[in-house]
Amino acid sequence: MVNQTLQDQTENQTGQVLGFRVAGVSAGLKANGRLDFALIVSDRPCTAAGVFTTNTVKAAPVLVDMEQMQHNAAHIRAVAINTRSANACTGQTGIDNAWETIHEVARAVGCDPSGVLVMSTGVIGLQLPMDKIRNGIKLASQALSDDWPTAAAAIMTTDTRPKFDIQHVQEASGKAYNIAGIAKGAGMIAPNMATMLSVIATDVALPAGLAQQALATAVRQSFNQIIVDGDMSTNDTVVLLANGASGARINTAEELAEFQMILNMLCRKLAKEIVRDGEGATKFVTLQITGAPDNAAARKIADAIATSPLVKTALFGSDANWGRIVAAAGRSGVAVNPNKLRLWVTPGEKLGQRVYPEDSAERHLIAPEKSDALLIFENGTPTDYSEDHAMSIMAESTISFLLDCGMGTGWSEVWTCDLSHDYVSINGDYRS
Amino acid sequence: MVNQTLQDQTENQTGQVLGFRVAGVSAGLKANGRLDFALIVSDRPCTAAGVFTTNTVKAAPVLVDMEQMQHNAAHIRAVAINTRSANACTGQTGIDNAWETIHEVARAVGCDPSGVLVMSTGVIGLQLPMDKIRNGIKLASQALSDDWPTAAAAIMTTDTRPKFDIQHVQEASGKAYNIAGIAKGAGMIAPNMATMLSVIATDVALPAGLAQQALATAVRQSFNQIIVDGDMSTNDTVVLLANGASGARINTAEELAEFQMILNMLCRKLAKEIVRDGEGATKFVTLQITGAPDNAAARKIADAIATSPLVKTALFGSDANWGRIVAAAGRSGVAVNPNKLRLWVTPGEKLGQRVYPEDSAERHLIAPEKSDALLIFENGTPTDYSEDHAMSIMAESTISFLLDCGMGTGWSEVWTCDLSHDYVSINGDYRS
Repeated sequence: MVNQTLQDQTENQTGQVLGFRVAGVSAGLKANGRLDFALIVSDRPCTAAGVFTTNTVKAAPVLVDMEQMQHNAAHIRAVAINTRSANACTGQTGIDNAWETIHEVARAVGCDPSGVLVMSTGVIGLQLPMDKIRNGIKLASQALSDDWPTAAAAIMTTDTRPKFDIQHVQEASGKAYNIAGIAKGAGMIAPNMATMLSVIATDVALPAGLAQQALATAVRQSFNQIIVDGDMSTNDTVVLLANGASGARINTAEELAEFQMILNMLCRKLAKEIVRDGEGATKFVTLQITGAPDNAAARKIADAIATSPLVKTALFGSDANWGRIVAAAGRSGVAVNPNKLRLWVTPGEKLGQRVYPEDSAERHLIAPEKSDALLIFENGTPTDYSEDHAMSIMAESTISFLLDCGMGTGWSEVWTCDLSHDYVSINGDYRS
Repeated sequence: MVNQTLQDQTENQTGQVLGFRVAGVSAGLKANGRLDFALIVSDRPCTAAGVFTTNTVKAAPVLVDMEQMQHNAAHIRAVAINTRSANACTGQTGIDNAWETIHEVARAVGCDPSGVLVMSTGVIGLQLPMDKIRNGIKLASQALSDDWPTAAAAIMTTDTRPKFDIQHVQEASGKAYNIAGIAKGAGMIAPNMATMLSVIATDVALPAGLAQQALATAVRQSFNQIIVDGDMSTNDTVVLLANGASGARINTAEELAEFQMILNMLCRKLAKEIVRDGEGATKFVTLQITGAPDNAAARKIADAIATSPLVKTALFGSDANWGRIVAAAGRSGVAVNPNKLRLWVTPGEKLGQRVYPEDSAERHLIAPEKSDALLIFENGTPTDYSEDHAMSIMAESTISFLLDCGMGTGWSEVWTCDLSHDYVSINGDYRS
């Protein structure tokens, strides 16, 4: 089982993705010689897929990448990522700078400009310092290696640690291939700006057309589980590159399903890392909604709860303030009946029920009644749960809530974090 | 002009509303002998109007008051307000306790139970301590006077100061009447629980049917300008009582228009006080959206900006981070074009433009270009504004932003505050 193979290798985060080389360097964009510029290069054309922010205020690199992907999605060769400036709200100069970056990268790595993508993260409204960008391209193109952790470190902004994963897959059929991903995130409370970028690279060959579908499916149940409402920042971008250098190729429906499962798992791992490292976050909270009229309604309820500052500050205070959760559900726009709501809490990520949108194969329903989760609200009132028991759960750094609406079969799962003093400090003077 | 009269008397916050007596007492609900229970009594039946939370999780007093208002809106005599427990998510016991409170108040003030309303604010899920409630009713009914400030103080929760206003109106026609209001608020960031209660009392006579319409209009452009999405807590309630004790009566359309203007002004004053005293708030921010496709779209944009934790923490940090405002507008769900957006900022509450929904008479449009507001974003990029100038504006405690979308004639105005360390502290351990 490919699943078993992955489980065994979860801790193994080193190694190659054949045909890919990466670099993370200090281009002088940030002070103190910190890593601030990354480059990912494939020695041959990749099938590429991209998921971009739905914000109508799109950064220049997003607009430029969307244009590149429209024409050149079958032969992408490189991705360059800068920090410090988001290159958003920078007008025509910003667009020109994004294209100039692309041409410089193409020259440096020896490919056609049509095969280069760019990503930016940082402050909105700041033009790219092109001399430093050119410096970064030069340094990075001379430093290419298999060092994915350093590439991941070079795209951090307020992240406190790099986010990356690499998996070596051995299929039952004997085919072997590798897949790696790097990501940056940070702000987590609400739809956000300059929040998340991710590049995922694999040496399996993906037929054109399948890559986009596979990435969209994976993003929906990973990065979109942590970003509310499908709202995104000016810069959010996830790119998948598949270069076929392993010799393995996705041919059958079964192979595609296996690849999808691996891609989903890798994206979820990166997405959860983003939440765990959310700005000022002290807790990782899984929130499952079940029994809603439909899945969209379940997500609305989840969003209302996960974005509520009152809920999030109660989490920070380790307060089992179920009243705030129930009240948030009540104003979600879904006509929940308080007398039918049931709310459980449990430490860790193990509620009785694991739900993943549209992946029935990955959905294992176990009624929470049969788990050891603590039922704290039912029949319109709190149960006679022990406050000490609830407090001991809330004191954990990883907590799960399940809210059953008793209305239908709609369900959703989101991952969120608390709202702490550090979040206020980080964002109260982000620009300075 | 009635308007002029009001201006002159804005600072005059003492005096009577004829036929009304009020009390604020310490019933032992809170520790340390703090005021915690209020009673408002009219010596004759009032025409009453009520606006209640749209949250589907409604507190017992809300459900009970809605029932009272359905049958008895022409002869309300008293309103009792307790703090400490919101009497929400308290099941049938909570409903029974609300009715018992009503009967106790009726006995104490000598009216029919059908003429009593109740309000509660505090922690969700906590049953009313009926012995203390009975004590409060007894003490308050013996302490009735014209002391509106003390009544206002007795309904505070995390409020730092009482919120009340009283106006003595002299109409051009010679008619004279009085109107007073008390309110409590506090949490301000997002749709909230147990957030706001208000009682407004006047000794003018309002024909039945007009009261509800007048209150709904006033709430829409006051308390609903500070509460996002029309979403509200489990307990939010605003009640208007008119007892006619002054001998003055609203007869003509002109008199109604004048009364409406006074009611609007009083509600806005209380609403703005709630924002100014928002939990941990250090800044009062007016946010005006113009040029949206329609008013609903303008409000969506305003809500996205006003609830953004990134915008609110930047405000706390006195950072003119227009990028976060533009990014929030971009993800609001309205298809704004970043190249058409223009953003101004100015100290105080005086943008060039005052906008109030549906009150064309109160709308004075002065193009911000002709004001001294600072234009900081235009044509998809920041202007060459002076950062020092912007920082000096952001350092003020009262700031206004105007965002023009360049799309249509839709407009909206909301009042909001920043997100500070104190907000996190207050809500991180509210229950303890």
